[in-house]
Amino acid sequence: MSAKIEPRVLKGFRDYLPEAEAARASLIRKLEATFRSFGFVPIDTPALEYAEILLGKGGGETDKQVYRFKDKGDRDVALRFDLTVPFARFMAEHVEELYLPFRRYHIAKVWRGENTQRGRYREFMQCDFDVVGTDSASADADTVLVIAAAMKALEVGEVKIRINHRAIFNRFLVALGKEEKTGEVLHIVDKLEKLGKAETMALLKAEVGSEAASAIICFIEPEADFLATLEKLRSSCKADDAEATSAIKRLEDVYEIARATGCADSIFLDPSITRGLDYYTGIVFETSLVDMPEIGSVCSGGRYNELASLYTTRLLPGVGAAIGLDRLLAALDALGKSKPGITDPMVLVANLGTAPLRDLHALASRLRERLVSVEVFPEFKKLMAQYSYAEKKGIPYALLIEDSSGAEGPFPLRGLKNRTTQTFASFGELACFLDGIREGRTRE
Amino acid sequence: MSAKIEPRVLKGFRDYLPEAEAARASLIRKLEATFRSFGFVPIDTPALEYAEILLGKGGGETDKQVYRFKDKGDRDVALRFDLTVPFARFMAEHVEELYLPFRRYHIAKVWRGENTQRGRYREFMQCDFDVVGTDSASADADTVLVIAAAMKALEVGEVKIRINHRAIFNRFLVALGKEEKTGEVLHIVDKLEKLGKAETMALLKAEVGSEAASAIICFIEPEADFLATLEKLRSSCKADDAEATSAIKRLEDVYEIARATGCADSIFLDPSITRGLDYYTGIVFETSLVDMPEIGSVCSGGRYNELASLYTTRLLPGVGAAIGLDRLLAALDALGKSKPGITDPMVLVANLGTAPLRDLHALASRLRERLVSVEVFPEFKKLMAQYSYAEKKGIPYALLIEDSSGAEGPFPLRGLKNRTTQTFASFGELACFLDGIREGRTRE
Repeated sequence: MSAKIEPRVLKGFRDYLPEAEAARASLIRKLEATFRSFGFVPIDTPALEYAEILLGKGGGETDKQVYRFKDKGDRDVALRFDLTVPFARFMAEHVEELYLPFRRYHIAKVWRGENTQRGRYREFMQCDFDVVGTDSASADADTVLVIAAAMKALEVGEVKIRINHRAIFNRFLVALGKEEKTGEVLHIVDKLEKLGKAETMALLKAEVGSEAASAIICFIEPEADFLATLEKLRSSCKADDAEATSAIKRLEDVYEIARATGCADSIFLDPSITRGLDYYTGIVFETSLVDMPEIGSVCSGGRYNELASLYTTRLLPGVGAAIGLDRLLAALDALGKSKPGITDPMVLVANLGTAPLRDLHALASRLRERLVSVEVFPEFKKLMAQYSYAEKKGIPYALLIEDSSGAEGPFPLRGLKNRTTQTFASFGELACFLDGIREGRTRE
Repeated sequence: MSAKIEPRVLKGFRDYLPEAEAARASLIRKLEATFRSFGFVPIDTPALEYAEILLGKGGGETDKQVYRFKDKGDRDVALRFDLTVPFARFMAEHVEELYLPFRRYHIAKVWRGENTQRGRYREFMQCDFDVVGTDSASADADTVLVIAAAMKALEVGEVKIRINHRAIFNRFLVALGKEEKTGEVLHIVDKLEKLGKAETMALLKAEVGSEAASAIICFIEPEADFLATLEKLRSSCKADDAEATSAIKRLEDVYEIARATGCADSIFLDPSITRGLDYYTGIVFETSLVDMPEIGSVCSGGRYNELASLYTTRLLPGVGAAIGLDRLLAALDALGKSKPGITDPMVLVANLGTAPLRDLHALASRLRERLVSVEVFPEFKKLMAQYSYAEKKGIPYALLIEDSSGAEGPFPLRGLKNRTTQTFASFGELACFLDGIREGRTRE
């Protein structure tokens, strides 16, 4: 016998065993249903693209993390590291075949060869949704409504969607006479939660002086409610500043829509939210779970002016967000909500070695027609081994068919949790009982 | 303005636009539902693995097609080129955490840098399902039943599942005294459909002589029905050949189960099916669509002795198949079955510029609670432009809300196909009408 290759995955990669994969798939189904209910449509793009497309004219942090290589045709190619860049290329390439505004979602794997400490993976799934081709308050609001609806569909409890507008901070810094420090200030403020107020103040002082630092700290502090905070922002900018005025109006419009749709309780105006990236130009937001703030933002995003300026002169403004699947899965797990109803088979047709296989399969087939998922244990083994198999797989019932009673009954059905057997005289009675269980499960 | 990068994908790769992606997703959902109804559970594995794991000790045709490179840690890595090899590695690695028999399905992308002529893609989705850890007729039959159920769920019309058993051909060649030519003969017979009978005969003659060639041609010809063909196979092997006898018994058992579950009409015993790969050791099968035989097999597979012998000494016999998603998508397209019910939004809330945005969103939100998928056109544009948007997206209805009538009604609903407007006095009436349409659609 030849030497064996050690079965193992690359560092930073992982297999999904059935329970984990089913939990992920179920989460994704719920998100897709939400996206679709708002008119978002799915797309897909290749995992592998020209490196030039993905990295632009290059340099920077991203490059180091990218899986990049020469293919057999000596092309310089790379695995996608996010879904935003491929989407930009996609829009530039296909805009004429599509319609605007274009609402898409994309749930797919991306790869980053980064440091794998702190539970980071090199392969993970991203979930993005965007509306491009419009600069309207309606689309901004829809993004927030989708987040609220998605979190409700996932039953993760109360959420806090913190929103802000990039322009207001920028214009406030202009009013303060510190616009030349915008980059530095945003960078510091972005880390407020990590650093704490005192540390942030100290860093700001060093950057813009004590007086401006105090003004900034005061500016980023949320007030009692959305509208009170909005008033403070209004008074922090110059009254004749058209850009600031329009940004404040935008936040007002979004809040009004959230209120009209019953989402206002989840929306908080937080002037400290800036989303470090230069990319965003309008509304920005982050989402946390009230019961589990420590897992960080489960959905972040914002508005941008130019999605695809690397590839086209056509202006494609948009707004969108990325949902953190891994964080949500961890949250659902912690909340004990990832398990029920996930492993599907409801009935194991046990193999007692006495009934012909064809009868066991015929019975399974009849039950499937009634939408009961069922499997036949393929060979004769000790009954305890078959029960233990069912238990490991989460199958709640076993049918114990002896001799040639398979077609006609009676049908002894064993509940594997309570370890009692109930016998049904006819197939109809058995099917009705299982129908009831199945519908209860679906409703859960 | 800087020069733009031309937006394009690599040769052999492609984007999925919403209609194509929705069709693919819908197909996959139906397959998943079928797999689950038989107790199959989903798994996932990394796209990137150690090259040694994927290619074994190397050499061969596969190597040339594989995307293989050194990562930043100088590891020799490769993109998976199928789902079988990663599954073998997965089973060897996790068998102790799982349960046997293990029924899994895996639907994921694979990559092959092969010649892209003849519509071949370098990135495509595979869909595999297998039962490992058992060598039973029950599992063989289940595989066939899953294929039949999946094709029924996809509504691709009548199918022809042609099955055979590798051992019977082998034992027949032994009886014929030509076992040393087994490889060559299988290779020729495997191409019967491509070559035609005359060409096959000529090639066989050159290999095994005229008499044996005639016997082989006679052997591989199906008879009037399954059982008649089975009798011919029985008489072609030696009566005391235990291996042949057990193989014939296996085919009999599978056919009996197919008959008991109402699938017998789709099952054909075809001794010419050999599935060229050395990998298979038992039952083998191919599936064609009766209305579209020209697209080739849409689902092929068979039984193997050792799934994971490269990685473990543990014997893992199994049976499984791969479903050809791209072929099925093409078939559904040709049958005109890929479109209806795919693009989701049912109602566009038009933006007439007179009603406040909050009213449009509140109405959309109320409809969503009734499970109607609906989107708000985000900005005021000419009505014709909004209709044309809806049409391109396949949205059948537009709600035309003026002024502040949004909350109270009346609700004018325009059918975009028949171009007539129906006005509903109350929200309840509107919702009832849309409920009816939605349920009709779901039933479709």
